[in-house]
Amino acid sequence: MREKYQELLAKLHEVDDIQMAVSVLNWDQTTYMPPGGAEARGRQIATLGRLSQEKFIDPAIGRLLDQLQPWGETLPVDSDEAAMLRVTRRDYDQATRVPPAFLGEFYGHIAQSYQVWAEARPANDFSKVRPLLEKTLDYSRRLAEFFAPYDHIIDPLIDMADYGMKAATVSALFSELRRELVPIVQAITSQPAADDSCLHMNYPEKEQEAFGIDVVRALGYDFERGRLDKTHHPFTTRFAAGDVRITTRYDEHNFGDAFFSTVHEAGHAMYEQGIRVAYDGTPLGSGTSAGVHESQSRTWENIVGRSREFWTHYYPLLKARFPAQLENISLDAFYRAINKVEKSLVRVDADEATYNLHVMLRFDFEIALLEGKLAVKDLPEAWNERFRQDFGILPPNDRLGCLQDVHWYGGSIGGAFQGYTLGNIISALFYDQALKAHPEIPAEIEQGKFDLLHGWLVENIYQYGRKYTAAELIERVSGSPLRIEPYIQYLKRKYSDLYAL
Amino acid sequence: MREKYQELLAKLHEVDDIQMAVSVLNWDQTTYMPPGGAEARGRQIATLGRLSQEKFIDPAIGRLLDQLQPWGETLPVDSDEAAMLRVTRRDYDQATRVPPAFLGEFYGHIAQSYQVWAEARPANDFSKVRPLLEKTLDYSRRLAEFFAPYDHIIDPLIDMADYGMKAATVSALFSELRRELVPIVQAITSQPAADDSCLHMNYPEKEQEAFGIDVVRALGYDFERGRLDKTHHPFTTRFAAGDVRITTRYDEHNFGDAFFSTVHEAGHAMYEQGIRVAYDGTPLGSGTSAGVHESQSRTWENIVGRSREFWTHYYPLLKARFPAQLENISLDAFYRAINKVEKSLVRVDADEATYNLHVMLRFDFEIALLEGKLAVKDLPEAWNERFRQDFGILPPNDRLGCLQDVHWYGGSIGGAFQGYTLGNIISALFYDQALKAHPEIPAEIEQGKFDLLHGWLVENIYQYGRKYTAAELIERVSGSPLRIEPYIQYLKRKYSDLYAL
Repeated sequence: MREKYQELLAKLHEVDDIQMAVSVLNWDQTTYMPPGGAEARGRQIATLGRLSQEKFIDPAIGRLLDQLQPWGETLPVDSDEAAMLRVTRRDYDQATRVPPAFLGEFYGHIAQSYQVWAEARPANDFSKVRPLLEKTLDYSRRLAEFFAPYDHIIDPLIDMADYGMKAATVSALFSELRRELVPIVQAITSQPAADDSCLHMNYPEKEQEAFGIDVVRALGYDFERGRLDKTHHPFTTRFAAGDVRITTRYDEHNFGDAFFSTVHEAGHAMYEQGIRVAYDGTPLGSGTSAGVHESQSRTWENIVGRSREFWTHYYPLLKARFPAQLENISLDAFYRAINKVEKSLVRVDADEATYNLHVMLRFDFEIALLEGKLAVKDLPEAWNERFRQDFGILPPNDRLGCLQDVHWYGGSIGGAFQGYTLGNIISALFYDQALKAHPEIPAEIEQGKFDLLHGWLVENIYQYGRKYTAAELIERVSGSPLRIEPYIQYLKRKYSDLYAL
Repeated sequence: MREKYQELLAKLHEVDDIQMAVSVLNWDQTTYMPPGGAEARGRQIATLGRLSQEKFIDPAIGRLLDQLQPWGETLPVDSDEAAMLRVTRRDYDQATRVPPAFLGEFYGHIAQSYQVWAEARPANDFSKVRPLLEKTLDYSRRLAEFFAPYDHIIDPLIDMADYGMKAATVSALFSELRRELVPIVQAITSQPAADDSCLHMNYPEKEQEAFGIDVVRALGYDFERGRLDKTHHPFTTRFAAGDVRITTRYDEHNFGDAFFSTVHEAGHAMYEQGIRVAYDGTPLGSGTSAGVHESQSRTWENIVGRSREFWTHYYPLLKARFPAQLENISLDAFYRAINKVEKSLVRVDADEATYNLHVMLRFDFEIALLEGKLAVKDLPEAWNERFRQDFGILPPNDRLGCLQDVHWYGGSIGGAFQGYTLGNIISALFYDQALKAHPEIPAEIEQGKFDLLHGWLVENIYQYGRKYTAAELIERVSGSPLRIEPYIQYLKRKYSDLYAL
């Protein structure tokens, strides 16, 4: 059986090698590829994507999994081998349920939809993408149908990103969270807004870059096994345990944009860098769910990167680098600026308090669209109305409304958004446990040191990759299922220091 | 038949997509990959290399070629389709003659040999690589045997780089060339050497880079379809017709190093950029032979880049960029400096007059090693003795002797070197024809314009890719087989202007 297991691993490594090559092609496309390379690059990525899919759904892998199953059941459930068989089986079943012909068609449609959206958004023209979005909704439903029976049609789509979560559990969590959030947001936004003009002075790119690199290196992002480049949209990509890259973008009139993006991506990347090297090239060798992944980007971006402790150490260093820009700005004023709360139009620019309301709105629309209770043609109006209800402002156009996010235009409708809010909830839950284990973490952060926190995360979360599901990790770490309390406590603690709640 | 032809093309495109991905992985490895990525990258490249080989030697391609052959014979011999079938058949026969198991073993050996050489060269320790080089010689012989019968054992190895060339033709050309070269070198080196100290002032990297980019853009290298990066060893790589990249390296105390390397690589790249876009992703979509490829790098580096006409325009611009470094250095003095001739130890640093003597020495050793007339263990001594005969100087060590070039340590023995000298010969032959068509080329170059020359090369050479063999191209362009006269005339004209010959 050992031999068959090795045979399976060899096949999985081959699939992974091809997928990683696709990731390199994508990374190059967004970083350094000259314009003339685009057309051929699209072909190359499509060919390799198809190849890796073909190699993975190879019936030989199914046979090996069948043959290994009885052996796997004799192994300790906690062993790497048992986890490898479990997770590979889950991926294999998922991949083989969807006919390759459907996937080919769907990907083709998505590529076209993305192109049209990329033009329709700046032109503020929903009517251009509407027919494509209608097809996307149809494809999304058909995709879900391959996994019937289900409790709710969105469940299979959620499963692909946040395994084990369902419409029912997400909705319950979200409405509980909403009840707590709305009064907090209401209380804060009825007080005078923070002054964040100090973030909008001229911050030269080179200096921003140097500061960002200093910080993420100190947090624990390993540049021997990664690098930072510039792209239009920041992202993290893994080519191997030893090569996890991040990207960012710079706005010379917005210090926070690049800085918090860089720290956010470094959070994703530290997760990937922390996975056991032995899992490299296998289904265990990546983050376990969208929610847990986002929890790590948000831990480092928000819980650490927007904390008073962090800036107690770093603000003097920032001020030394940008003395003119931050002259007469106290640590307190700077801290208020980076934690400004406001009812704004764009999710990706939203603060910690309002962010989840943006996500819930999208999640509810995914449900309504998939259930057929909302027609695509009615989306812009429904969006604006719901936005007015939730935020008290009416989006002036669709560009700042239902056209703002790429997700529905470059992927399926359903499963794309819940991970962001799950990530926020999980980030506080994990951090809470880390604090229980090491109450001195905040004091360490005040010294510009992050070893205790980073070490705890590697030990309890990162190293396992996909060995444990999100639910299993949460249970192992906290002794109970996902709860919103630590997150609510975190937000209340943070904002009651800044506002009267 | 059209349908079968399209089916063949689709299969060839797939192979090409995988090969191009390998090229991207290689490029990234030498430009931006962090150190931690090396191990996984080796695996990824090996997997994709094997996959592209498997896909290409697929019997289905053989069957399509068989089925299409009668149709191909009805097509005009000059048609693209006929050429596609001809060249694909040739590649397919070559690829299917070598057992995949042998290739796997050989590549594994080569990777190891390269690693050991990379350490043995700086340590000046031939004994470390000797056993590996003995195995390489054995592998090279076995590789050639797969193509038996042959006139000479090196012929199949030459064929892989310079299709149609044989030991007999190369040796004849080389000895003819040698008879002409030796007296020229003798005459020049018996006169006082040129003073090239002006090239060894401090030339800041950023300024060198900017000047290099200005020049290669003016020559016709298209940055919309390419880019320039830094690597340890300069090279050109093609990912598609629209994405042909070059690399260079900078030595702040040697202006010529980066400048002529950059122009050299731009020459290779302009060839690749000039190939018909319709050939992209097929066996026709690359340069036709090592010799013709090298002819283009040498045309731009030497015939143009080391000409008086070129510097008549560019020297004032160079001087404006480096006023302190070139103060009091006349165009004439600069021109003599960049064309300094000397008997030196290292091929890659050699001038136009002595360069081919370095190549001939290596070619003769390949023959002697493959024929079994020279044992690997005797190579260092034989090298030094031959070098003393040819150059009048004794290499002080193997690092500057038989360890200097990567070729034998990272590839087969045989076929690696003749292309360099063939390239020199061909460069002058093509340039001669371009001058006959457009006698005003030198005057245009004096104006910093290169359209006539570049246009002639695209029209007569570049666009065809591998449609015509080197021999066919030469015949088409000059009306006769490869001759050394234009090259000898070029060298005599050039050097009689600088020295008494």
